[in-house]
Amino acid sequence: MKYGIVIFPPKYIQDEANSYRKRYDPKYSLIPPHITLKEAFDMDEKEMDKLIPELKRIANATNPFSIEIRKVSTFFPVTNTIYFKVEPNDELMNLQKQFHEGKFENNMSHPFVPHITIAQNLRDDEYSDVFGTLKMNQFNFEATIDRFQLLYQLENQSWTVYETFVFGKEIV
Amino acid sequence: MKYGIVIFPPKYIQDEANSYRKRYDPKYSLIPPHITLKEAFDMDEKEMDKLIPELKRIANATNPFSIEIRKVSTFFPVTNTIYFKVEPNDELMNLQKQFHEGKFENNMSHPFVPHITIAQNLRDDEYSDVFGTLKMNQFNFEATIDRFQLLYQLENQSWTVYETFVFGKEIV
Repeated sequence: MKYGIVIFPPKYIQDEANSYRKRYDPKYSLIPPHITLKEAFDMDEKEMDKLIPELKRIANATNPFSIEIRKVSTFFPVTNTIYFKVEPNDELMNLQKQFHEGKFENNMSHPFVPHITIAQNLRDDEYSDVFGTLKMNQFNFEATIDRFQLLYQLENQSWTVYETFVFGKEIV
Repeated sequence: MKYGIVIFPPKYIQDEANSYRKRYDPKYSLIPPHITLKEAFDMDEKEMDKLIPELKRIANATNPFSIEIRKVSTFFPVTNTIYFKVEPNDELMNLQKQFHEGKFENNMSHPFVPHITIAQNLRDDEYSDVFGTLKMNQFNFEATIDRFQLLYQLENQSWTVYETFVFGKEIV
């Protein structure tokens, strides 16, 4: 089974992201707008169940923290993904780190850049147009994050939530 | 905010359901295959947060139970929805009931028929074709259910999971 770990930002940020994703993200319908904390990884269901207590321990050791989004950015020229840039903060960076050490495989293929994807797989000219317009915009999104979610992927590439982990609220 | 409460069956049942939904369900991309326990209801976020302990109490008082799917059925002529019929059992019926009494508004518009939708809003002739074919099939799906999920709806009508409630595992 393929699993992933994400944060879903509050509804108003998801709605904003979707207003772009609808047009510019072919993966729009596969998962709600999210911050990826751990990229898709393969794991046996039984093995995953053994890691659940570990996820609960991490959730319990994490305090709710704020995130801010001020602008869009891009991974160009590596990929032409455009995203809401989530300003890095220690709590978020530390949370993400814990899913890539100890009992968790380090499946990071690049340094962690917290973001919410709003466009990807665009044609070159479309990318230039969209990013050219969006980079002028100032955004002013703030949110308190108090949970993360473990998801698994279905055969059609969409994702279903397996479990939510609320900071400080889990029985280990 | 609009909330709902559902059970996501295991991946293999979701994959089967999606193989039909992809062609026959216009809501395919809005939510993974699910058993609805409580239809969409409007609630203030702060009011919903007050109901979370109630959901945890219900989860803690519920034991994991089995569900079986043997055939498809339909709501025709009320609607032309076609669904995997989930054989009713006491645990499932009792769980659903608890979301419509006490602190929860009873927003049921019809008796509870446990099901996983696989087709809806078909043209009449298409409905007849699809149901005519599917009703001949025997299915043999079984699953253990040990959790339910609280979701909220985004502006694009899709659903995001807010929280998972695992039977017997919640801190109230």
